[in-house]
Order: sequence, then structure tokens, then C-alpha cells
Amino acid sequence: MKKVGFIGTGIMGKPMAANLLKGGFEVTVWNRSAEKCKELLALGAKWGPSPKAVTESCEVTFAMLADPIASREVCFGPEGVLAGIGGGRGYVDMSTVDPQTAREIGKAVTEAGGRFLEAPVSGSRKPAEEGTLIIMAAGDRSLYDEVEKAFACLGKMTLYLGEVGRGTQMKLCVNMIMGQMMAAFCEGLALANRVGLDLKDVLNVLDAGAMANPMFRLKGGLVLSDDFPVAFPLKHMQKDLRLALLMGDETGQALPAAAVVNELFKKARGQGLGDLDFAALWRVVKDSPAS
Amino acid sequence: MKKVGFIGTGIMGKPMAANLLKGGFEVTVWNRSAEKCKELLALGAKWGPSPKAVTESCEVTFAMLADPIASREVCFGPEGVLAGIGGGRGYVDMSTVDPQTAREIGKAVTEAGGRFLEAPVSGSRKPAEEGTLIIMAAGDRSLYDEVEKAFACLGKMTLYLGEVGRGTQMKLCVNMIMGQMMAAFCEGLALANRVGLDLKDVLNVLDAGAMANPMFRLKGGLVLSDDFPVAFPLKHMQKDLRLALLMGDETGQALPAAAVVNELFKKARGQGLGDLDFAALWRVVKDSPAS
Amino acid sequence: MKKVGFIGTGIMGKPMAANLLKGGFEVTVWNRSAEKCKELLALGAKWGPSPKAVTESCEVTFAMLADPIASREVCFGPEGVLAGIGGGRGYVDMSTVDPQTAREIGKAVTEAGGRFLEAPVSGSRKPAEEGTLIIMAAGDRSLYDEVEKAFACLGKMTLYLGEVGRGTQMKLCVNMIMGQMMAAFCEGLALANRVGLDLKDVLNVLDAGAMANPMFRLKGGLVLSDDFPVAFPLKHMQKDLRLALLMGDETGQALPAAAVVNELFKKARGQGLGDLDFAALWRVVKDSPAS
Amino acid sequence: MKKVGFIGTGIMGKPMAANLLKGGFEVTVWNRSAEKCKELLALGAKWGPSPKAVTESCEVTFAMLADPIASREVCFGPEGVLAGIGGGRGYVDMSTVDPQTAREIGKAVTEAGGRFLEAPVSGSRKPAEEGTLIIMAAGDRSLYDEVEKAFACLGKMTLYLGEVGRGTQMKLCVNMIMGQMMAAFCEGLALANRVGLDLKDVLNVLDAGAMANPMFRLKGGLVLSDDFPVAFPLKHMQKDLRLALLMGDETGQALPAAAVVNELFKKARGQGLGDLDFAALWRVVKDSPAS
Repeated sequence: MKKVGFIGTGIMGKPMAANLLKGGFEVTVWNRSAEKCKELLALGAKWGPSPKAVTESCEVTFAMLADPIASREVCFGPEGVLAGIGGGRGYVDMSTVDPQTAREIGKAVTEAGGRFLEAPVSGSRKPAEEGTLIIMAAGDRSLYDEVEKAFACLGKMTLYLGEVGRGTQMKLCVNMIMGQMMAAFCEGLALANRVGLDLKDVLNVLDAGAMANPMFRLKGGLVLSDDFPVAFPLKHMQKDLRLALLMGDETGQALPAAAVVNELFKKARGQGLGDLDFAALWRVVKDSPAS
Repeated sequence: MKKVGFIGTGIMGKPMAANLLKGGFEVTVWNRSAEKCKELLALGAKWGPSPKAVTESCEVTFAMLADPIASREVCFGPEGVLAGIGGGRGYVDMSTVDPQTAREIGKAVTEAGGRFLEAPVSGSRKPAEEGTLIIMAAGDRSLYDEVEKAFACLGKMTLYLGEVGRGTQMKLCVNMIMGQMMAAFCEGLALANRVGLDLKDVLNVLDAGAMANPMFRLKGGLVLSDDFPVAFPLKHMQKDLRLALLMGDETGQALPAAAVVNELFKKARGQGLGDLDFAALWRVVKDSPAS
Repeated sequence: MKKVGFIGTGIMGKPMAANLLKGGFEVTVWNRSAEKCKELLALGAKWGPSPKAVTESCEVTFAMLADPIASREVCFGPEGVLAGIGGGRGYVDMSTVDPQTAREIGKAVTEAGGRFLEAPVSGSRKPAEEGTLIIMAAGDRSLYDEVEKAFACLGKMTLYLGEVGRGTQMKLCVNMIMGQMMAAFCEGLALANRVGLDLKDVLNVLDAGAMANPMFRLKGGLVLSDDFPVAFPLKHMQKDLRLALLMGDETGQALPAAAVVNELFKKARGQGLGDLDFAALWRVVKDSPAS
Repeated sequence: MKKVGFIGTGIMGKPMAANLLKGGFEVTVWNRSAEKCKELLALGAKWGPSPKAVTESCEVTFAMLADPIASREVCFGPEGVLAGIGGGRGYVDMSTVDPQTAREIGKAVTEAGGRFLEAPVSGSRKPAEEGTLIIMAAGDRSLYDEVEKAFACLGKMTLYLGEVGRGTQMKLCVNMIMGQMMAAFCEGLALANRVGLDLKDVLNVLDAGAMANPMFRLKGGLVLSDDFPVAFPLKHMQKDLRLALLMGDETGQALPAAAVVNELFKKARGQGLGDLDFAALWRVVKDSPAS
């Protein structure tokens, strides 16, 4: 497998496609706004005029899209993936969607004669750039084996989880924990701030103990500077929380803490923070009265 | 400073006193139930018949007690610390209490002619044994400087935070985050479990990403085995959440996610899980219907 | 208008159809399980072999179905409403669905040449029997005016709210409040119970003050007897909470209290209480540890 | 019993004392700021120079104070109730405190030779003015029987609940439900508002159905006008929620929905709404982003 497609070249997709290029793959790219492909073309990528065109011309096509709606459009829409897949070619959707969407896309691709993997990732912009994502794949096992080398360019860890749907489920569980950890972090810092502690001391204590983790280290800096350049957009975190809660709803698993955290992110989104990094939840939690 | 006292030799206090002995200090111990001092006496500690007797005979006395009530009793009760302190001797209360209790004890000790430090710690049984606690001290600066060597036997990191109350505030902020992280962890695993994912896979994904932390690693094992030998008792975590929320109440800081997590721990306590490790929250979150 | 159809003759639909018969209408009924129409046929109703057959033969057809899925099936399914509507005949869906479903059904009915009203109701079995429902109608104004007499047999209050979607939105807002009031009621009673108060005293105090309302009076009796014969099924309340929260999600309105209440109902559903009355939430809130 | 004392003449106490005067009692009043007694003196009340003086000179003294701190000060402080009580005279504290405070005051009064009733009320300014409060009394039974006529001037319903502490427990359970109902009301209206419904329609629907209650009717008007003249101060509602939650904490009763509602009220208090009516929670729930 040398020729691969890549659909969706946003915050995540662009560095991922770049890593495939660096890994020696011939990459054909498509993005709704072609503008965002410029750098990749400069690095040697080819332009595919539509998802259909990309999938037709590549052995395997990867996609990294913003949400379930975008994933469905790229697959089912006019000049979409379905129109180009077939002949056993592979389609690997790495977007975070809901399990239902993953299953519907998988079914349609298979019925069109293609092979399908869902492969959502854990990790945001930086791991995407560094090729250290965690890839949670599920679906066609033969395709999984074939894309092993490509995955190795993108991530530091890959799991094969079984039937389509499992990847998304794993992703949503993990991101739900992440959203709650961010809320815990923000509430703890807000309380410390309110009583007059130095937030740098708090970050140092956290970083020395059993809770020490890269996320607190990284996002702590953003909180201190109250500046939230986007790595993982807040609105996507909220979407993942919504999808995780709906998964709990379907299976009868109550998730009271996650539900409240979702409302905090919802509120942040409602206040126009959706396009900032999800650590911007800080602004809603801290909630300084107008002064 | 060679002669130190140690009051309260439970899960935390016993290994801490042992570390002071190993560090070359002469240690006089007292505990409500004398039984729990046996091992320390075998290691060379002396027995003090009361808190008063201990503080009278030692340059500095450390205490590690279960809750604010115990801290107050040991200080203000008959044959208590207040009766023995004076002459500039030092009292270092390392228990987790509320800021108000810390301030009252500090004031009383100072008025009785002693010097006071509050010094709550982050870390449970294992760091206590290994001498790798994080010590958040506040109060008399000269006393802080004098106990530096003793602190070095007990912890890997020490902060001096200013006036009495600051240590407790820091501790409660940090533990509030910890309680919420545990709830996030349990809810995420419960959802994964409900949809049929392998919890070992989830733990691996968590451990490979930005959220990786020693606590998830350690407590993940307990969850997998559904066995919760106590390192940090669930009832103490719930107490810390209550105290943190009351601190938020006093300062007007809303903490909705922490409030819901507190109710989960409260429920766990109500179901008789209070003396297990706080990771036993898992049982309440998972909440399998009788079958 | 003398000849009306009625589709869906469950807990709500059966007494509603009966009230139309009593009001002098000729009623043709259909239900997925024909069994449930027996009593109505005995009262003089005719049997329609399919939703299509009913709508074809009646000037206006009413429907009262369990959830959005059932509403869609009856409308879009084979031998469904769409196949029979046309010629300006009316379709009035009184089920509680989500705004999106209401709009899609409304659009399809209109395109098929029919006229459409959504008309969800407030009130459960008893008001349905007594003809004292509250009807929240939206859609075709001429149809609304024509069904005035029929609505008068079913309810004591009717509102016309404008374009399709408004009725459902109103219903969901009102039911969300109802779910939260039930949780408030159960938590207050559970606390009273836990501290040893007589629940009858609590109900008397509530009934004498500013919070006095028919629901507390009615459901208080169920709680006292711990017996929950269904008037409004718990699983439907939880569905309405989910739909209301998603409506908040779409519009950026955070609803933290409702979100937690939804998780309580979810938990109750997960414990097999879904088919009892929604006051059975009591069992989950009270939550007595096994003893 | 003709001569009664009344301590605390704020929003509630003033009209209550006035009703005792109208009922034919000789009333001696005291208030921290004497200013607030003027109107009562004009109505024929006498001035007592201290709580001690009032209780010394009256057969029974009533008190209506803002919170546990004020109740304790008036009782235990210099020139306080304890100094004047004795000889079997009665003290009836109608403030809302915590059960512990009620018990401590009761014990002290009894030990000083007095008789004690706690008698918190349900109802705010208007019922206080109209003499239609609900009185939840507990403590000395003989005193309860003696004050029957006085209670009849103040309230429309009186319960005797047993030992001291029961009155406060009842009050807190009932007010916790009230706080949650207010949050339910505000969230439902906020959602309706966000999707564009007319709030008057929503209020009409609520008032026609099973949830209809005087509080929604009364407070609905405040919400529509976004004007919140105080009947029951928001900060007192939040205090009652805190006390109720702590009561749940002591008894192991989890109250997740109430906990989240408490945080909403806390937030409102933190934003400076504490002295408005508790319906001002609306402003925090609605939470319109600056635009």
C-alpha cells in the first residue's frame, strides 16, 4: 500500500496527512475548503477534486472530520466516498462520531464493496503533529492489518477492538473522562483562586503527586495566562460528552457527574467559547462577577 | 532538634513516625488506642502517656489525626496538647482539617506560648511509607525552618504557604480535584463496562495519553479486581469534599461538579463503603441492578 | 366534522377516543395490537385496518403514540398515515415527540396534500379519562379551528402556539419542570424519612403552603404506600427529559439541575422501574442500603 | 398569658409582632437596630433594652432571627436570653437554624430554668403579614399548649413534632423542596425563553395542570418583570439548602439534585443577588451571554 487518500485537513487532519507524506506514502487530499490543503500540496500531496475521486484512486482513504454530520456528508453526499469505494478498497474514518453513525457508514461502505475501519483517536493537535496519537480501531480485520504501517506514522499506540462501533465507544468513554478531569481541574483552581492561593503553587502540588498528568501540566499554563489557543475545540468536547451521555442513556448507565460537566461545557459554548481550547471552561467555572 | 513527639499512629501516622525514627530522631508517640503504637515501640520509640506529656517533653510534636474532631480533642481536651505546649516549643498538626479548626488550634497554641504549623499532606499510605508525601505547611516561619530535616524524612516536596489556614485550603483544593478525578474515572469505566468494552483496554488507552497518572494506574487495578484495601478511606475523601464545598460556600464559589461528586461519595458512605479505599466509589457508580 | 380517526389506543389514547365517542363523534380506531381497541369497539367505534385506511376514511385523524419512533412509523411506515392523507384531510398528532420529528411529519403531511397539527398534551391517565387535558397545539390554523369541538371533548384548556414545533417545545419545557419537581419531592421526603420525620406530616405541611399542588397530593399517596401503578410511565418522563436537554443543547441553554434529575430517572429506568409511574423515582432516591 | 416578648423585628418578625398586638397581647420588643421597632412602638409595643430584659419581664418570649449565628448571639451573648430566662418562663425561637443549634439553645434554656420550643415557620413576608404561616413546633409540650393562642395569631396551621430538633428538620426538608422547585421553574422558563416561547403561555399551562401552585403563580410575575423585591431572601434559601445538605451528610442520604441546586443559589449569591427574593435565581439560570 503506497497510495493513500486523506479527507479532512483541519487542525488534526493536516498534520496527520503530513506525517503520512513523511512516512513515504503518496497522499491524495481533499477538504471542503481547498485553502486548507495548500501546505500539504507544497509538501507533495496531490489534490483530489471530491471524496469520490480520492477513494476511487487510492487503495485506502483516511478521513478526519469535525463531527457526525460531516462524516455522513462526506460518505453519503453527492460525489461522496460511497460513490468511489468498491473493489475491496479501504475507508478508514478517524473522526469521532457516535456509534450509530459509525455502524451506518460501515454498513454502507461494505455493501458498496469496500472495506471499513473506524479509527477514532485520542490526542489533539500536538500528538497529531508528533505522530503520537492513540488509535482505537474497529471493523475489518484485514484492512487493519494492511494499514498498520500508516497507523505507525500517525500514532504511538493502536488497538484493534472488534466490530464497528467499539472504536467510537472507547473514544467517547475516554473523552468523557477527559472532560470531567478538565472540570475537576478548573473547579479546584477556581476554589484555590477564590481563597487567595497562588495557582502556581497548586499546579506544583498537583504535579508532584498521584494525580500528576501531562494534561494538567499543559492546560495549567493556559489557565495561568487565561489564553486558550485551540488544540481540542471546546465545542467538540461538549459534543463528545453529549454522545457519551446518550450512550449511557441507551444502556441505562447513570452518569450524574458527567451530566453536570456537560452542562458546564454547554454553558461555555453558549457564551461563545466553543472555538477556543476546551480548557477555556476555566472562564465559566471561575465565573468572576462583573466588576 | 533531636527529640520529637508524634501523636496519632494510624494508617498514615505510623509509617510517618517510623520514617522519623529511621531518620535518626528520638520519637515519643501517643495514640488513643495504645495498641497501634506497638510496632513503633519495637522500632525504638518511647511511649508518652498523653498528648500533654508528649508535647512537654519534646522540642517539636507532630500530629496526624483522622478529622477536625480528633484534632480538636487532642489539642483542647484534658491532658491535651495545650496543657503541655509552651516555652516556644513547636506543634505541627499534619491532619486534614477545615481552615477554621486550623486557625483556632494555631491561635490557642500561640497564646499558650508555643509555636504552630499546620502541615496537611497530599499522598496516602504508600507515600507515607516511602517518605514521599507532599507537605503543605503554613504558620510559624521559624518553626518551619527548624523542622526542615524532619519534613525531609516524611516528604519529597514541602511548600511554605504563609499564615495558618493556607495549608488546609491547599489540601482541600487538591483533594477536591482528586475526588472528582476518581468519579470521572469510575463513570468512564462504568460506561465502558456497560457497553461491553474490555476495561483493561480502557486502562491502557488512558495510560498512553495526556491523562496518564499514577492514581489511575494504581486504582485501575483495584477496580479490575473489585477489591478495595484501604489506602485513603472513602469516608475521609467525602469529608474533604464536604469541607471544600463549605469553603466554596463561604467564598461564593459555585462548584456544581464537585457537589454532585460529593453526593456520590455520600451515597457510597451511606452504603457502608466508608472504610474501604475511596476507589470503592466504583461500586456505587457501576450500580449493577440486582440480578 | 363528524367522522374522526384515532390511532394509538394505549393508556392515554383509549380514554381520549372514548371521550370523542361520548361527544358524539363517529370514531374509527387503529392500534398496533388490536386487542386494546376492544372496549372502544364495544362503545361504538369502528375498526380501521391500518393508519392509511383510517386517514383515508376520516376528515380528521388524531394520533396518540408512545414516542418519536412510533410516531414516525405510523406516519411514514407501510400502510401509514402518509399513504392515506391528502385532499386537505387533517392529521393531529398528540404524541410527545421531539421538535424535529414534529416538523418532519408536518412537512410530509403537508406535501402529501393534508393538513397537520401537532398537539401534545399535559396531563396523564386521569385527565385523559376526565377530558381535562391541556392541549398545546401548533401548525395549520384552519385545522385548529375545525377541531375545536373535538379538543373540547378531550381537554379543559387549549392553546394555539404557531408553527409546528412550538407545541412540542412547550410540552417538553413543562414536562422537564415536572420531572424536576418529582425529584425535589422525592429528595425532600427521603431526607425527612432518613431523619425520622413522619412523612404524613411532611405532606400536610407541603399541602398547606405555597408549594401545594395536585401532583404532590396525588403522588404523595403512592410514595406512602410504595406502590406505583402507572399513570405516566417513568420511561416516558426520562425520554422527555432527554429531549428537553437536547433542546437545551441545540440552543446553548445550560440546565444543570435538569441534567442531574435526568440521570436519576435514567438510573431508575436502568433498575427496571421504567414501566411504573414516574413517582417510582422514589425508590432510587430513597435508596435504602440492603439491610 | 398576656405579656409576651418578641426579639428580632425584620421582614418576618415585624408583621408577626404586629399580629400579636392585634391579637390582644402586650408585646415587648427588642431588635439589634432599634430603628426597626418604631412602627411596632407606634402600634403599642414596649421597648425592651436587651434580650435579657425582654425575657425577664415576659411570660413567653418569641424570637425570629436571620440565621444560626444571630440565634446563638441573642441566646448566649451578653445581656442575652439565657441571662433573663428562668422561673419556668418560655422561650420560642421561630428562626430557621440547624438542628444542632436548636438543640444547644434548648438545652441551655432548660438548664437555666426556662422552657423551650423551637418553632420555625413555612411562609415568607406575606403569610407573616396575614397571619397564615405554617408553624412547625417541637420541644416543651406544656409551653406548646400555652402558646396556642399566640400561634393562632401568627399562623393557619401548627404542628407539634416532638423533641427539639424535629421542627428544624421539618423546615429544612420543606425548604429544600422549595429551592429545588424554584430551580425547576427557572430552568423550564429559561429553556422556553431560549426556544422563543411566550413565557405567559408557559405560566398559563403550568397553572392549569397538576403542578399548579401558589408559588409558581406568585414568582412567575416576578420573572416576567425581572424584578425581585424580597419576600424570602435568596441568601436565606441558600443557607437552608446548605443546612439540609449537611443533614443529608450526617445521615448518609445522598441528594444530588438538591446539591446542584444549592450550587446555583451559591452562584447567585456570589453574583450579588443574595438580598433579592430567591426567585432572582432566574438571572443566574437564564444567564444571557453579554451581547
